[in-house]
Amino acid sequence: MIYLDNAATSFPKPEAVYEAVIHNMKNFGANPGRSGHKMALEAGRTIFKGREMICKLFNIDDPMQVVFTSNATEALNLAIKGILDQGDHVITTSMEHNSVLRPIKRVENNGVENTIIQCDERGELDPKLIEQAIKSNTKLIVTTHASNVTGTIMPIEEIGKIAKEHGILFLVDAAQTAGIYDINVSSNNIDLLAMAGHKGLMGPQGTGVLYIREGIDVRHFKEGGTGSKSQELVQPLMMPDRYESGTPNTPGIAGLTAGIEFILEEGLDKIRKHEEELTSYFIEGLKEMKKVKIYGQQNAKKQASVVSINIEDEDSSEIGYILDKVFDIGVRPGLHCAPMAHRTIGTLDQGTVRFSFGYFNTKEDINQALEAIKNICEQI
Amino acid sequence: MIYLDNAATSFPKPEAVYEAVIHNMKNFGANPGRSGHKMALEAGRTIFKGREMICKLFNIDDPMQVVFTSNATEALNLAIKGILDQGDHVITTSMEHNSVLRPIKRVENNGVENTIIQCDERGELDPKLIEQAIKSNTKLIVTTHASNVTGTIMPIEEIGKIAKEHGILFLVDAAQTAGIYDINVSSNNIDLLAMAGHKGLMGPQGTGVLYIREGIDVRHFKEGGTGSKSQELVQPLMMPDRYESGTPNTPGIAGLTAGIEFILEEGLDKIRKHEEELTSYFIEGLKEMKKVKIYGQQNAKKQASVVSINIEDEDSSEIGYILDKVFDIGVRPGLHCAPMAHRTIGTLDQGTVRFSFGYFNTKEDINQALEAIKNICEQI
Repeated sequence: MIYLDNAATSFPKPEAVYEAVIHNMKNFGANPGRSGHKMALEAGRTIFKGREMICKLFNIDDPMQVVFTSNATEALNLAIKGILDQGDHVITTSMEHNSVLRPIKRVENNGVENTIIQCDERGELDPKLIEQAIKSNTKLIVTTHASNVTGTIMPIEEIGKIAKEHGILFLVDAAQTAGIYDINVSSNNIDLLAMAGHKGLMGPQGTGVLYIREGIDVRHFKEGGTGSKSQELVQPLMMPDRYESGTPNTPGIAGLTAGIEFILEEGLDKIRKHEEELTSYFIEGLKEMKKVKIYGQQNAKKQASVVSINIEDEDSSEIGYILDKVFDIGVRPGLHCAPMAHRTIGTLDQGTVRFSFGYFNTKEDINQALEAIKNICEQI
Repeated sequence: MIYLDNAATSFPKPEAVYEAVIHNMKNFGANPGRSGHKMALEAGRTIFKGREMICKLFNIDDPMQVVFTSNATEALNLAIKGILDQGDHVITTSMEHNSVLRPIKRVENNGVENTIIQCDERGELDPKLIEQAIKSNTKLIVTTHASNVTGTIMPIEEIGKIAKEHGILFLVDAAQTAGIYDINVSSNNIDLLAMAGHKGLMGPQGTGVLYIREGIDVRHFKEGGTGSKSQELVQPLMMPDRYESGTPNTPGIAGLTAGIEFILEEGLDKIRKHEEELTSYFIEGLKEMKKVKIYGQQNAKKQASVVSINIEDEDSSEIGYILDKVFDIGVRPGLHCAPMAHRTIGTLDQGTVRFSFGYFNTKEDINQALEAIKNICEQI
């Protein structure tokens, strides 16, 4: 299969990722941060190395501010619900994933107000609208770094400046960009950074990360054994134990660490350029097909390697089905868990057929995808 | 290393578990329940097969009532906080892990009362005390199936009957027993069953399960993309999507499924008998050493394969350190995240040295452990 569904999860992973998972399971498969015997200590070092790699990639000072979660969704829930209290106001955008919108809708019940900034039909956000929406009780701004529907990149640097000027916390959902784009929590004024471990970071599924800037009090939502202050029946507030109760996904984190090492070796620039080239080549090819409507900016410099299309009025699921069955190409049709983004670009009923490329895709993959789309267009 | 820390996580895993993890990652590493292409469907089938295996092992009717979590701690938090409301009363025991006690202490802040039944110095629970503690507002009884400190098995069958008679929900923490003891949610009247995937079930770390009896409304605490009802900004209430937002740990669940298949092939009886024999042999050996104090029932029929000891007044961590450094034996000293259990057995200051055996331990491992303990006794 030609796998063009990297926005859902990256595939394949670097060989070193598979090896790290199995090496951990077979050789140091103990419980980290507990016990104290050699195997447990080695498992603990694996986890700590993972935190250090995250620090290196995002210019984070202190590895203890890196919290491992089971996915980006958990990281986003933790940040949003851990920050917002009754009477607070949160600003977000119409291009967000349900992992941002649904928690924000949930806390409405607790008396947390929200403003959802409308993006334009290409998914672009005007940062001035963010600034205009700020109220005296605005506590948090949440934006995705790149839309999972159109790939549209959000101006996080400008938003970070606005947030800082107004003393508002800034949470970035980097699910689509971590490991591909340069994100610097310090210069970008990011207070909270949520990401998936299994997309651009090339780790296994079951991993996610939340970076919390030092000094920010995020309420935890799970209590349990932390291997620290075990005599107390109250959850310890030390970092990162506060947020990591129970046995972590050690093999997953070992794999994620290997994924980040691979990224650091290759270099973010090289990875991003490759994905940009594929995206650009794909968009140019699509532009020649009259029956194809391309959404978003249609500019690889302004979007992550995610391209959403439709073929005339055909149901996106139908096209996805044909691409799979007839052409052995894996894409994702439908709403991509981001209904407001689809309303924004005008595809709430039809959905879109989403092509998303990864570092291991080749120009030949794109040629075959273009050929398949052309073929479908001719049949319709 | 001789690994005797299976109560923290089982090691090694059956070969099929490693293979399943890698097979999933290398061949079907797509996002399950999303997309719809061949690889995604295969990943989805992997998850569904996991639910079916859990059903088979615990006599659960409907695979959709099986919720995958990242560990037992998450499953317990979900059950405890998802059930209890202001004004409710919950009953638990003094032998519980912090993954039960800390969430219960947390919800005290929300006006949830609790009664913690005192067990005797061997960790035994008198179920009559549970019945006596029931009040008109008692909504939930939570007990571990076996203590992670002394291995003491709790009379879940009797407690289940009491709960049913009084119309109270019964949550069992099977972290130490799932995959080793016969647990039947139907005949044991268990409404909610929480377990780790990486202990007796032989799966990878990063996996846990919560079974929820049909018709019980458990509040979810995470919202996000579920791949279902994507057009709605409110979390869908369908099972099990309600509780499984975001990308699951598919390779972990693939490994867990292989672990359960291994258990079903070997047979629970064979596994339990082997662990009972090792436990019994170890206890008999210890009884000959005058300086050793053994905690709990000292009866392999009444305890899981967990044995806590101390050597005179020596610090448990010191003994754990010597076992590791000098004898290359991995155990867990300290409080094991269960402070009330240690208060119950009188070891809150000293902690205990915990030996916990798994299916892959041998009599020779036990001989070496006994030899090491004897040696340490002679040096003191």
